[in-house]
Amino acid sequence: MKGITEIKVRGYHLDIYGHVNNARYIEFLEEARWAIFDDSDVGISIMAKGLAFTVVNINVSYKNEARVNETLVIYTEPKAFGSKSVTLSQNAFRKSDGKPVIEAEVTFVLVDRNTGKAIALDDEIKNILIGVGNQ
Amino acid sequence: MKGITEIKVRGYHLDIYGHVNNARYIEFLEEARWAIFDDSDVGISIMAKGLAFTVVNINVSYKNEARVNETLVIYTEPKAFGSKSVTLSQNAFRKSDGKPVIEAEVTFVLVDRNTGKAIALDDEIKNILIGVGNQ
Amino acid sequence: MKGITEIKVRGYHLDIYGHVNNARYIEFLEEARWAIFDDSDVGISIMAKGLAFTVVNINVSYKNEARVNETLVIYTEPKAFGSKSVTLSQNAFRKSDGKPVIEAEVTFVLVDRNTGKAIALDDEIKNILIGVGNQ
Amino acid sequence: MKGITEIKVRGYHLDIYGHVNNARYIEFLEEARWAIFDDSDVGISIMAKGLAFTVVNINVSYKNEARVNETLVIYTEPKAFGSKSVTLSQNAFRKSDGKPVIEAEVTFVLVDRNTGKAIALDDEIKNILIGVGNQ
Repeated sequence: MKGITEIKVRGYHLDIYGHVNNARYIEFLEEARWAIFDDSDVGISIMAKGLAFTVVNINVSYKNEARVNETLVIYTEPKAFGSKSVTLSQNAFRKSDGKPVIEAEVTFVLVDRNTGKAIALDDEIKNILIGVGNQ
Repeated sequence: MKGITEIKVRGYHLDIYGHVNNARYIEFLEEARWAIFDDSDVGISIMAKGLAFTVVNINVSYKNEARVNETLVIYTEPKAFGSKSVTLSQNAFRKSDGKPVIEAEVTFVLVDRNTGKAIALDDEIKNILIGVGNQ
Repeated sequence: MKGITEIKVRGYHLDIYGHVNNARYIEFLEEARWAIFDDSDVGISIMAKGLAFTVVNINVSYKNEARVNETLVIYTEPKAFGSKSVTLSQNAFRKSDGKPVIEAEVTFVLVDRNTGKAIALDDEIKNILIGVGNQ
Repeated sequence: MKGITEIKVRGYHLDIYGHVNNARYIEFLEEARWAIFDDSDVGISIMAKGLAFTVVNINVSYKNEARVNETLVIYTEPKAFGSKSVTLSQNAFRKSDGKPVIEAEVTFVLVDRNTGKAIALDDEIKNILIGVGNQ
């Protein structure tokens, strides 16, 4: 369980304005979500069962620009559980001075790829997500 | 002024789940925003003045998956003007059957790159954005 | 059959140096290759058969920078057929003045996803690719 | 000086075929090149001088597919120095079994952003690159 992810900003993350592009941050958030399952086999077993974590909403505020060579620290923790959904809080800070860079809430469901329907999150998955928040 | 953008989904837009990746849609929305200024020189004059459209919030809901070879139609129109900000509504539909794919609100400001401060949107820019909504 | 693709350079295509990033061009080339099959159902039938076009080599030279608002024109044509491979020539020019931007040769094979082995290109596919070159 | 970079393959790196997309690898290679300068201030001083490392050629062979959760190890080392250019060898292997994934040669020059001309590589930069190869 790993709720803290560091990403070093590179030149290819930037756009015409010399700061990290708004879409690239959404990839950074996804990277941090994948990292949650790095130390368990839950990610693999989900795929083996034909299930998929599917994002249903992202609400992201861009607080301060990030530039090349800065290291971002992304904290991920559960904010709310629905019957079939979970909302994660994902906030990124600049490592050097702690300035907030982005603040996001990401809501997703677990979808059965065969039926296309969301299914209830089982306790194993909930416990991993809760564990991430307790780090 | 061009408030309607079509994008054909390609194999490289998809992710492990065989649908368009959540971050890629954010690029699609940015593509549609650039297209607004294709028929005027406002985009160029903004850059010449050292200004930059900077996203401050995106709230995007993913309604239905999009898959390869589907054409998406993105409608962009202004939803609300603040003193220094504008919120665009950007909704994407599947062209073949009109099914909603994503619904987004994107708020941005015009930043003076020298001072890093947001400035008031002038009438020329507001009128272009309003014109987009009247198409 | 469509061997000519236009792409307008946007702010999110650029990197720290204010020009189109080297990796982004590789996506532009893939976009142009997908476009070849837009007017036939070959692309769909390939996927239905469990086959996949798989790139085995890209040799790309970056000749001149491309910047925001420039339109690139990518010409794609077959250069050489092997028994199980095809090499496409894909060259991009700046539309305004014809300056070369990238020159690439892309070699790919058609892989049977079940066996993981390359199979012979059938005449229908070859003819589409040859037709692209005769436009 | 850091000539070895590890990247864990995530779901958003994949494309319609369930393997890492060909363009994404080019970003992986760029990531590995940025990492070379992580432990020195050469990268920063290059930018401060108005210089830019600019890729002029990439020749990349795709040897074996990479899939989700696999870790790739990218080895970067100088292969040849020209008067104003350097060619790096960048090879990626699957960490679990050492299978080759991509083999690339990347040639770049150091460009003066003011004149747009390539300049000679100085000894400090050459020594960093040689040091990478001696790890």
